[in-house]
Amino acid sequence: MAGLGVGLIGTGYMGKCHALAWNAVRQIFGDVERPRLVHLAEANADLARVRASEFGFEKATGDWRDLLADPEVQVISVTTPNQFHAEMAIAALQAGKHVWCEKPMAPALADAERMLAAARASGRVAIMGYNYIQNPVMRQIRALIEDGAIGDINHVRVEIDEDFMADPQALFYWKSEASSGYGALDDFAVHPLSLLWFLFGHVEAVIADMVKPYAERPLAEGGRRAVENHDIASVLMHLGGGISAVLMANRSAWGRKGRIALQIFGSKGSILFDQERMNEFELYQASGAPAEQGYRKILSAPVHKPYDRFIPAPGHGLGFNDLKIIECRELHRAIAGENYSAIDFANGLQIERSVHAMAQSFSEQRWVSVPKG
Amino acid sequence: MAGLGVGLIGTGYMGKCHALAWNAVRQIFGDVERPRLVHLAEANADLARVRASEFGFEKATGDWRDLLADPEVQVISVTTPNQFHAEMAIAALQAGKHVWCEKPMAPALADAERMLAAARASGRVAIMGYNYIQNPVMRQIRALIEDGAIGDINHVRVEIDEDFMADPQALFYWKSEASSGYGALDDFAVHPLSLLWFLFGHVEAVIADMVKPYAERPLAEGGRRAVENHDIASVLMHLGGGISAVLMANRSAWGRKGRIALQIFGSKGSILFDQERMNEFELYQASGAPAEQGYRKILSAPVHKPYDRFIPAPGHGLGFNDLKIIECRELHRAIAGENYSAIDFANGLQIERSVHAMAQSFSEQRWVSVPKG
Amino acid sequence: MAGLGVGLIGTGYMGKCHALAWNAVRQIFGDVERPRLVHLAEANADLARVRASEFGFEKATGDWRDLLADPEVQVISVTTPNQFHAEMAIAALQAGKHVWCEKPMAPALADAERMLAAARASGRVAIMGYNYIQNPVMRQIRALIEDGAIGDINHVRVEIDEDFMADPQALFYWKSEASSGYGALDDFAVHPLSLLWFLFGHVEAVIADMVKPYAERPLAEGGRRAVENHDIASVLMHLGGGISAVLMANRSAWGRKGRIALQIFGSKGSILFDQERMNEFELYQASGAPAEQGYRKILSAPVHKPYDRFIPAPGHGLGFNDLKIIECRELHRAIAGENYSAIDFANGLQIERSVHAMAQSFSEQRWVSVPKG
Amino acid sequence: MAGLGVGLIGTGYMGKCHALAWNAVRQIFGDVERPRLVHLAEANADLARVRASEFGFEKATGDWRDLLADPEVQVISVTTPNQFHAEMAIAALQAGKHVWCEKPMAPALADAERMLAAARASGRVAIMGYNYIQNPVMRQIRALIEDGAIGDINHVRVEIDEDFMADPQALFYWKSEASSGYGALDDFAVHPLSLLWFLFGHVEAVIADMVKPYAERPLAEGGRRAVENHDIASVLMHLGGGISAVLMANRSAWGRKGRIALQIFGSKGSILFDQERMNEFELYQASGAPAEQGYRKILSAPVHKPYDRFIPAPGHGLGFNDLKIIECRELHRAIAGENYSAIDFANGLQIERSVHAMAQSFSEQRWVSVPKG
Repeated sequence: MAGLGVGLIGTGYMGKCHALAWNAVRQIFGDVERPRLVHLAEANADLARVRASEFGFEKATGDWRDLLADPEVQVISVTTPNQFHAEMAIAALQAGKHVWCEKPMAPALADAERMLAAARASGRVAIMGYNYIQNPVMRQIRALIEDGAIGDINHVRVEIDEDFMADPQALFYWKSEASSGYGALDDFAVHPLSLLWFLFGHVEAVIADMVKPYAERPLAEGGRRAVENHDIASVLMHLGGGISAVLMANRSAWGRKGRIALQIFGSKGSILFDQERMNEFELYQASGAPAEQGYRKILSAPVHKPYDRFIPAPGHGLGFNDLKIIECRELHRAIAGENYSAIDFANGLQIERSVHAMAQSFSEQRWVSVPKG
Repeated sequence: MAGLGVGLIGTGYMGKCHALAWNAVRQIFGDVERPRLVHLAEANADLARVRASEFGFEKATGDWRDLLADPEVQVISVTTPNQFHAEMAIAALQAGKHVWCEKPMAPALADAERMLAAARASGRVAIMGYNYIQNPVMRQIRALIEDGAIGDINHVRVEIDEDFMADPQALFYWKSEASSGYGALDDFAVHPLSLLWFLFGHVEAVIADMVKPYAERPLAEGGRRAVENHDIASVLMHLGGGISAVLMANRSAWGRKGRIALQIFGSKGSILFDQERMNEFELYQASGAPAEQGYRKILSAPVHKPYDRFIPAPGHGLGFNDLKIIECRELHRAIAGENYSAIDFANGLQIERSVHAMAQSFSEQRWVSVPKG
Repeated sequence: MAGLGVGLIGTGYMGKCHALAWNAVRQIFGDVERPRLVHLAEANADLARVRASEFGFEKATGDWRDLLADPEVQVISVTTPNQFHAEMAIAALQAGKHVWCEKPMAPALADAERMLAAARASGRVAIMGYNYIQNPVMRQIRALIEDGAIGDINHVRVEIDEDFMADPQALFYWKSEASSGYGALDDFAVHPLSLLWFLFGHVEAVIADMVKPYAERPLAEGGRRAVENHDIASVLMHLGGGISAVLMANRSAWGRKGRIALQIFGSKGSILFDQERMNEFELYQASGAPAEQGYRKILSAPVHKPYDRFIPAPGHGLGFNDLKIIECRELHRAIAGENYSAIDFANGLQIERSVHAMAQSFSEQRWVSVPKG
Repeated sequence: MAGLGVGLIGTGYMGKCHALAWNAVRQIFGDVERPRLVHLAEANADLARVRASEFGFEKATGDWRDLLADPEVQVISVTTPNQFHAEMAIAALQAGKHVWCEKPMAPALADAERMLAAARASGRVAIMGYNYIQNPVMRQIRALIEDGAIGDINHVRVEIDEDFMADPQALFYWKSEASSGYGALDDFAVHPLSLLWFLFGHVEAVIADMVKPYAERPLAEGGRRAVENHDIASVLMHLGGGISAVLMANRSAWGRKGRIALQIFGSKGSILFDQERMNEFELYQASGAPAEQGYRKILSAPVHKPYDRFIPAPGHGLGFNDLKIIECRELHRAIAGENYSAIDFANGLQIERSVHAMAQSFSEQRWVSVPKG
């Protein structure tokens, strides 16, 4: 059987990450055919040719619609800026391609809903690129929770913090425009929401507070411009099953680089995780001798599948890019009609509904229920 | 000049801590007279005699009012359960004694208000036992903030977590009764609120969510009883100066023993602290070579006053009880009419107003402004 | 029964620490009589009076021999510089006093041997001030080892590092003189040796390497002077029972403030400890589900006796000075003829024999057996 | 220009790692041609075919000598067990191929010397697979040292610890045979030695102690067999420039999974690193305000080249396998005749000379100078 024919739209941060995953997935897992890197699209044909050469794609184009017409392309990675996701993903699905789309779906909820509708109409696989749920450590955490290792969960805290918007002297750019979304909630807080979904299911009700640490930012041409969205968001939440949660997102958090910190409390123990140290987690169990109870720091290891496909020795560590390879393997399962672990458009849409509910709760200063799809 | 004549009411956890502080304050600081440990009260006269002997008090009584009448007593430590604070502190002040009262002031706001009124009427010193603000590390954090080391503060998170209520099989006891207060908010969340006051001043507006991890608990006599208050509370807050904050309190947090974790974000850096490692804090400053920026872990040292009064070598570590000795020195300053750093009844009352506002915001499911005294 | 009559010689770093311990031991433990702080000696009579007032001693003197003649003094704390220990301790013992002497015994082995002889001849208690073995965490570590929690021990590493000699521009002072001893080995490496003794017994054979990070240091009067001893020492060791060990001491280790780091490896697990975080330790046990094995960080707690005598809540933390209070309680046991846990002169001498063997092994560049007393 | 034609011998742990690197190096770096995965050899022809398919190699063989005769193969990865390195690497060089050989060179020093001679005679590139020096964090540490960020280095400690030999009940296997080498020193301690070489150059003199934690191990067929080499080694060392060092290696260290811990002390600061958290390091500099000095934890970031080729965001983390991709890029430089950063056979041999000197120092119980090549 031949490998999947792959099209790639976009070659930035996530575009390269997808290319690496497509290129490595068979080497790592062995049990899928090697994908054919068929066709790569960039905004500019020259850049497309350069990237196609670097990434090992056979064809290059400056017009992403060329991929739709390419019969050798079976699946398309959509890794362009968020505002283009809807148009591209829908067109790809309508052209009969499977879609692997980076998160979030789209700034506007209506666009995200159209994406789901297109996926359903197409009968094709449509998967979101929520890579953090693919961490073998995160899978182990879910297994522990399911096994009752820390009893019934009653409270969760999750923080996502980086400092790419922390410098007040940094020039105003599109991420501070209202058209790009709410700020920290969009394309940033969705990551911890993907973890919450993976572990506990969808959010039921929310109330958010949002803050602009800097009311305005300097312009390149001189002068200053008012910031239109919020770099900091804090949210009280109710998950299902009586679990209360707090979500905190801060993209102006000096010193934080890739922090996604989880604290999960249950009736028999608790679990801690921080993406900045993605190869470890901590487990506390209220059992055994009282003088010997404490948080256990567990390093990622071959026993945490599929770490073993990368490295046979424990404690040696996966990297950020490796998570996308695991996600790519899950995508293969989805396309093959097997059980898979990834966030499809239906669940992706529900995550975005919770984001919009948060924004609404902030503007109306009240608790808001997240509508169900 | 003679040392202060001390009366002590209560000899439990905090009573012993006060006795240790009174006994050591001159040895440590050298610049106050040795207090005279005059009169100790316990609920039971026999126990009072035992404790007076152990703690080095001259007189013992089973009736705390005996201390009011004792002309040798100039200052009274009130360390009894919270519901007795108001009666005792007010009587002591009316008897012309200075008062050092453990936190919080009282379960009912009206009682706390009467305590402040009594303090004002008496002209005596009335100080609350918020010891965590006395940590030399916390003083250094405040100095850094005041010096602009991390720029303008825009966001703060504070968590207080312990696990003394985490076991669902533990028997129902008075801490789960509504009469004891709201649960995690009372006599627990007031600690982080004291830190927020120390660093940023008082809270302006709040909205809280509260949770009962266990709806009922077993009774010693068999059967089960419904839990009447909340072991988990999460609060969105506005401090002054445009600072947003999140307060999280969980007294059923398995694995946490004495966690009071602060994250402070500013326009030039950030600061981290955790009471479980009370002899260190972390400072991130967005300056210097980008390749060398990171959180600096700073160990407590003689340069962080008054650590030097305890130990001349850095990194050797103070203990929990040492903070009370520092507080005792501040109390001496207050009595001497000098500048001091401690939480008086006026500021203590304002902390409790914020707690009651949190409870109100939860029951009314809306943001509530904290009334100003 | 009356409390012990206490004499104190020296009021510096350790002198104050002893005074605090004598003053607090009854308050903390309750089961010993309050010591009488009888007589304090300093080099200068005026300073002696000041310190006696601060520390609460009844009498003050500029001549330490006055304590020998004072019939109210039953036990003498010797906290002067190392070169005075022998003369003072021996005289005190000969005068019929019990002795609590700071470590190490004496720079010269012959003097230390005379101290032991004097102790034996006197029939009095003679205890060394090795406070780190009194940490409840260290006691728990010993209990775990004795219980076989990590199986048979086969390898140990211990590091002691501070940076008080790290600055090459710091002026030459007596600690760099040969007469003060070998450098890092004296009065510094003896601390980890006390821990090794506490956990595993005495050292059998050693080979050391020593280094001068700075060949000379500036003089206050201008010019430079050659450094005469070694600020860094590294030692391979054989303990009893086939345990190999490595001892590393560096008093010019920039960044280290009070590090005494232990790593203990056994056939079933391992244990880690660092004095800079003296209220916690880590335990790894090779048991249970492989996917859940990891180092458990255990916080000090009331269940680790006698932490409970200081604080009834776990994770709140003892301080450096508290260890001396525990040591003082052990001294009381020794004087009362009870079982006690402290390092007497016989074991103290054996520790110093191992130090001298290390120095010999360095000068002779060969393994040296430690002679047994 | 066409990409390098690659031959791969061995497809285990390191064989797969090489295959991943060859496959990804152009995607990551963009500035090298995509290597052609030409010919793969395994012990068994069937397995070779399976692995060639998985790894994307064009041809497969059960006889590694087929690669020597293949004109399309220009460079050969040697990833077989250590005892085969010499034969294969020498044959490859003699056949005119470049060689990328996993560490160490060979159990016998004479074999390693023949390998170097063959490399020199061939004029081909011969590089060892010491991947840990390729970590962007390690490069940053070297740059800091070279820039004098911590002054003149005077002392270094390095530990390598894992627990794959920690279980005394594990069956005897070839790693406990004398023919496999000295134990912890071979193919294990060479990793930290590669770091020492990278940072400080070669070792000058050594004295080692070695230990067998378990004198014998059970046999599969019943009974027990004596262990013939040492799982624990501790070494005092002199590096050049007056730097003293301690090397500790323990392959029976329960709880350690991939620890390679470095402590580097200089006249102005110190640096800490641990491979188990390979995306961070700690830097202490004795400058700035004393109240603010501390270890700075620096997360790997794009500014630490070539992290930026993998991920454009800081703190997201590389993995163990990524280091081999960087090494592969350096190999390309070497083959292109450019400056490169990797360990060639000459430096690899010198590392092994130091290992043999350690073993000699242990058997002769004396310091041994490491002969220079």
